[in-house]
Amino acid sequence: MRMVDLIEKKRDGIALTEGEIRWMIERYVAGEIPDYQMSAFLMAVYFRGMTEEEMVAFTAAMAESGETVDLTEVPGVKVDKHSTGGVGDTVTLILVPLMGAAGYVVAKLSGRALGHTGGTIDKFESIPGVHTDLSPREIIDQAKRIGVVIAEHTQDVAPADKLLYELRDVTGTVPSLPLIVGSVLSKKIAGGADLIVLDVKCGDGAFMQSFPEAKGLAESLVRVGNELGKRFSALVTAMDQPLGRMAGNALEVRQAIEVLRGGGPEDLREVTLALGAELLLLAGEEGDEVTARRKLVRLLDEGVAWEKFLELVAAQGGDTQCVEDPARLPRAREVVEVRAPRAGYVRRLSARQVGVAAGLLGAGREVKGQEVDPAAGVELLAKVGDAVDEGAVLARLHLGERARPEEARRLVAGAFEIGDEPLTPGKLILARVR
Amino acid sequence: MRMVDLIEKKRDGIALTEGEIRWMIERYVAGEIPDYQMSAFLMAVYFRGMTEEEMVAFTAAMAESGETVDLTEVPGVKVDKHSTGGVGDTVTLILVPLMGAAGYVVAKLSGRALGHTGGTIDKFESIPGVHTDLSPREIIDQAKRIGVVIAEHTQDVAPADKLLYELRDVTGTVPSLPLIVGSVLSKKIAGGADLIVLDVKCGDGAFMQSFPEAKGLAESLVRVGNELGKRFSALVTAMDQPLGRMAGNALEVRQAIEVLRGGGPEDLREVTLALGAELLLLAGEEGDEVTARRKLVRLLDEGVAWEKFLELVAAQGGDTQCVEDPARLPRAREVVEVRAPRAGYVRRLSARQVGVAAGLLGAGREVKGQEVDPAAGVELLAKVGDAVDEGAVLARLHLGERARPEEARRLVAGAFEIGDEPLTPGKLILARVR
Repeated sequence: MRMVDLIEKKRDGIALTEGEIRWMIERYVAGEIPDYQMSAFLMAVYFRGMTEEEMVAFTAAMAESGETVDLTEVPGVKVDKHSTGGVGDTVTLILVPLMGAAGYVVAKLSGRALGHTGGTIDKFESIPGVHTDLSPREIIDQAKRIGVVIAEHTQDVAPADKLLYELRDVTGTVPSLPLIVGSVLSKKIAGGADLIVLDVKCGDGAFMQSFPEAKGLAESLVRVGNELGKRFSALVTAMDQPLGRMAGNALEVRQAIEVLRGGGPEDLREVTLALGAELLLLAGEEGDEVTARRKLVRLLDEGVAWEKFLELVAAQGGDTQCVEDPARLPRAREVVEVRAPRAGYVRRLSARQVGVAAGLLGAGREVKGQEVDPAAGVELLAKVGDAVDEGAVLARLHLGERARPEEARRLVAGAFEIGDEPLTPGKLILARVR
Repeated sequence: MRMVDLIEKKRDGIALTEGEIRWMIERYVAGEIPDYQMSAFLMAVYFRGMTEEEMVAFTAAMAESGETVDLTEVPGVKVDKHSTGGVGDTVTLILVPLMGAAGYVVAKLSGRALGHTGGTIDKFESIPGVHTDLSPREIIDQAKRIGVVIAEHTQDVAPADKLLYELRDVTGTVPSLPLIVGSVLSKKIAGGADLIVLDVKCGDGAFMQSFPEAKGLAESLVRVGNELGKRFSALVTAMDQPLGRMAGNALEVRQAIEVLRGGGPEDLREVTLALGAELLLLAGEEGDEVTARRKLVRLLDEGVAWEKFLELVAAQGGDTQCVEDPARLPRAREVVEVRAPRAGYVRRLSARQVGVAAGLLGAGREVKGQEVDPAAGVELLAKVGDAVDEGAVLARLHLGERARPEEARRLVAGAFEIGDEPLTPGKLILARVR
């Protein structure tokens, strides 16, 4: 078999066999297929796509390209979630302890911020003392002990995905449905859970900006995922404005704490409950969605999820006093306000611009390996549908050490569109795909 | 400027500017753009194509990426030719001395065999003593002295083309019109001639297998070439069956000698005269095509072209006794015959299969750098339209040192299709593009 023949086959629109795909991924991870051939292949996939059979083989080959987290020795039902990335999306920090409180095992592997979207690992690590670099052994032991783990994705799990993602990033081949499907699912398949819920974000601040694209991705993810012997479900959720009122690491931890204590912004709580209920139904719990949500609401309101969160923070070395008293979390030395230029109703609030602004304030990284500032970010005081007076504070910018406040200010000010007509915010859960 | 942005632009079907293309080629030749980005770009070009303005900029940037052969100090009109490659295409060995005999300067840079097509340099070097590794200085001096040169294309001339061609060869991006145009023309532009005729081969043994494809390539070549300040003309010529009756290095030299002495196969002579006449017309010689051909026929029939060939061979160190007496050219130790399985008319003779067979006998190379066997090749005793008896010799296989005669025999036998109905061979010159 020669790689050039597989490139030409794909280029000419002919589906590759499972054996060909497996050979290609194995040889690539072994360093025997050069990047210049793989990038030509990826661009051919961009134009030609993949059949569902090819996606299944591609995902399986990537999932099997390195270590897998084997949770079989952990008793209980193992669940997992994944979001395609948005702004203010701190659902994982809430859903992991919530599902733990409901009696499920969640060994969540997460990534770091890149581009305008945050990363769960950066957020979790903004709690002083928390470490996330756990070995597979440590993950399994903690899962056995307390049922919940949030660990950094290492390159030992699905290394093919890591290599391919880095190559796609510099070769214009990121926005390709089959490549996204392979990337998302390979990590979930290697992650060891049985039931997985996917949150496919849709809108201005998401990777998929239109509903048909997002729905199509959700459908492919669920179909291919189910083919691979796990049970998947997906929600398509709105990401036109940020979720919640915070974009930034410690800021989002504060927000997660509010929800875990039974409060917090309604939209963040809503998405968390919808994803959690979906997992309970996937697990075959009795009753319908209403029953499932009621159970989760009780776990939030009665403090069971909160107790599980404290356990999780403590297990990973975190200072629980800082979460008991969020005022002790990292705080910016300087805060700048963005005010409304006129009275009216917020008609639009660009998630993408807020995300980019949070990055400019220090919450994100422009290149891999850069440090993020845990205190930096954007706090939103108004969201879509809110009435505002002229001069009212729309947002507070929390300046990190290397913040570029002027650019960030312009972006956040421009992210708000204020009009005369009142507006009801659109639906949050746009579709469910099972 | 970032290469990834140029890749995405091309991927999305947006034309690149001249500045962007120039930047890309310069940085690539300097080793600052990695192959994995260039190959993704090339695949995007495969799917999206290039505008004529892009092709002009791309060709110019490649032509200027290294040394150019500056023939300004050589008096006279400088002409050149290029063939897109076929089987038995030994036209260059005839046309160079013929144009020299007509008073033109021809400093021809040529390549070596790869794949199923031969290379002029390998053919010329099958004459004992001939060397072709001339420096630009030596090329200019010989052009001044005798008007004709056949030298190997070094990587100093249009190095971008050499780098890109090697990358295209292993990334499935060879068959792309704009990339072919850039590759062909950049070498001609850097080659120093003023008037250039292109032989775009069409058919089973050529790169372009259909007439519309070949015609389209010829048109793009001429349009883009003329934009670059040289005068180009192109013929589309048939390559369904091999040209002449030989495929192999010394075998094709023998064939060229026959034509240079006023004889030889009609089709080979015809294509040579058509290309030569086109050059005379490009040069503005008085009269029409008929006049031009008559002049060239006389130069062949009266031995003027032959004398120029002897001069050329001698100037490059070749043993002229071997060309005076072709029996002294390298000869295979063993010859195997392929016979007709039935009586009838030859209705088809696959140039590609004959070319591959010649390679298997030792005339070509499977990987770069391999030695070719000067004596190896295929000699055809019947061509399309010929009547054959059962058991008549259709071809003789001249076995090289590392020949795979059985495979070659099967290929050559299979290359012939013999039927009951007589058949007139198709046209040789399919189109002229000015």
